Amino acid sequence: MKLATYKDGSRDGQLVVVSRDLSTAHYATGIAERLQQALDDWNFIAPQLQDLYEALNGGKSRHAFPFDPARCMAPLPRAYQWADGSAYINHVELVRLARNSKVPDNYYSEPLMYQGGSDDFLGPCDTPHFVSEDWGIDFEAEVAVVTGDVPMATGPDEAVESIRLVMLANDWSLRHLIPDELAKGFGFFQSKPATAFSPVAVTPDELGEAWQGGKLHLPMQVQWNGRTVGLCDAGQDVTFHFGQLIAHICKTRNVRAGSIVGSGTVSNKAVEKDGKKEWVKGYSCIAEKRAIETILDGQPATDYMKFGDTVRIEMKGRDGQSVFGAIDQAVSRLPR
Amino acid sequence: MKLATYKDGSRDGQLVVVSRDLSTAHYATGIAERLQQALDDWNFIAPQLQDLYEALNGGKSRHAFPFDPARCMAPLPRAYQWADGSAYINHVELVRLARNSKVPDNYYSEPLMYQGGSDDFLGPCDTPHFVSEDWGIDFEAEVAVVTGDVPMATGPDEAVESIRLVMLANDWSLRHLIPDELAKGFGFFQSKPATAFSPVAVTPDELGEAWQGGKLHLPMQVQWNGRTVGLCDAGQDVTFHFGQLIAHICKTRNVRAGSIVGSGTVSNKAVEKDGKKEWVKGYSCIAEKRAIETILDGQPATDYMKFGDTVRIEMKGRDGQSVFGAIDQAVSRLPR
Repeated sequence: MKLATYKDGSRDGQLVVVSRDLSTAHYATGIAERLQQALDDWNFIAPQLQDLYEALNGGKSRHAFPFDPARCMAPLPRAYQWADGSAYINHVELVRLARNSKVPDNYYSEPLMYQGGSDDFLGPCDTPHFVSEDWGIDFEAEVAVVTGDVPMATGPDEAVESIRLVMLANDWSLRHLIPDELAKGFGFFQSKPATAFSPVAVTPDELGEAWQGGKLHLPMQVQWNGRTVGLCDAGQDVTFHFGQLIAHICKTRNVRAGSIVGSGTVSNKAVEKDGKKEWVKGYSCIAEKRAIETILDGQPATDYMKFGDTVRIEMKGRDGQSVFGAIDQAVSRLPR
Repeated sequence: MKLATYKDGSRDGQLVVVSRDLSTAHYATGIAERLQQALDDWNFIAPQLQDLYEALNGGKSRHAFPFDPARCMAPLPRAYQWADGSAYINHVELVRLARNSKVPDNYYSEPLMYQGGSDDFLGPCDTPHFVSEDWGIDFEAEVAVVTGDVPMATGPDEAVESIRLVMLANDWSLRHLIPDELAKGFGFFQSKPATAFSPVAVTPDELGEAWQGGKLHLPMQVQWNGRTVGLCDAGQDVTFHFGQLIAHICKTRNVRAGSIVGSGTVSNKAVEKDGKKEWVKGYSCIAEKRAIETILDGQPATDYMKFGDTVRIEMKGRDGQSVFGAIDQAVSRLPR
């Protein structure tokens, strides 16, 4: 099934069930008011939401209305955890290659992961505000999952089974704030402002054969100012599947229902053409484009985003239909 | 006023108001069921809780019962944010001095801060479970505050005014997992398992003159296996007050109600005696004790905690009464 959260002026919004083709929606009132509430008591509430979903798809629900992504908050407008991995090591390799630095061996056996802020997410069409363009404003197109409860020391295979929902994320990054923060060793903080999520979160069964072993085999479409810049396959070149990412978190602690886990920037390897490397799938963040330029030409040519720039992130199923709806945002200066 | 959360089998527990002397409590039913609910709508709900608090202190509440810290969850059993600073640079200096490494200059002008997991906190008397003693199990006694909403780009002075509640934290740390994680640059993750909080969270007005400009001038009592090892003054040698820590978070994003911000390990400077340094106030984490031993003797003599070890963290007011109740925990092996 497909779930979304409609703005209603409250901090957590109103849970709605959305039809498979994203054309209509229905309030889940009477079943659950908020998505976190459904996740807290999933085995009891999910079947009731599923019934409503089936009625909606069959055109049999009594109070359906046209679905409007612009009215959506993030599926979880705030969450108790947002842990973002770096599952596509190709992304790390590129960035490192651009500065002539080797990827440490343990990056291939243990996921990189940072703990993100989760108290104030952006809806798919919400305006991200930044104080300055000089901070190096960048998007990052990612796949993210929402978990149920996962006890400490759970292994990767079992952890896959704990995945309740899948969605897309735009992990906004401030590139010029990153070097100083990473040098301090305490990880990203100011360099990772509020993250945005897709209009709709979907259950894994909804993804059919595209969802296999904790990997999502669909292309991540990224448009920057209306131009397609990325079409990377999210199921290709993944060093760690979502079960491994979740198991990484719960090595030393329990993971509780409603935790969001991110894949990191989706990134595909270059292909060799006439002895030359070509990144035919494009990029899911500008930093990677700049790394490729540096590798090829010795320096980056593409600048980061300016106020007014737009980014659109979407994934279409094998039937050509949008699976999660689109993240569609325009960068803006923080009003004084 | 003083607030706590009683275990009731649910994820968020039941909000109770606790008397000033911590002897009695009263369910806040009818006002707010959960602490987050009160924080979401503080200006409306806090005065009602305050009325109940005054009735309770005056012995005039009808359904008061004896307060039992062992029945407490963390005041916020799960939260939307847990951001832990490192406000006592003396702690950083000690650890660095022990490995002959200078503290970078910017550590004195910009707080170190990491984003912690906040989906599964421990109550004050809950058993922390660990898979292995070899991970270097350590306590960290800290002061923590809970904020209201703080808009992006708020300054330190205004940020102090957003503090709703003050409490104590035991920021459990796995010391032997830290070097590898910090080397990766993405910050603490597996090395920071579930944090525990004091039985009671109190409003700043409750602290009287001990609370000044975002600093808490009271001694942090730490007992390890029943022996007092630390009595550091939390208001002394603080490089960054809580307003500065909160302002650090909201440089690039909004901070939403119910965010928890930690001070880092409370730590006081050594005093000079006969030309020698003496750390007369003791320590609030074992890592610091080991650093002092290394400085004095070339190597650490004190080992980290073993299964069965206990730690008790408490703060007494100038009247000798416990302000927040005690964090009192016994380390245990994760059951198979």
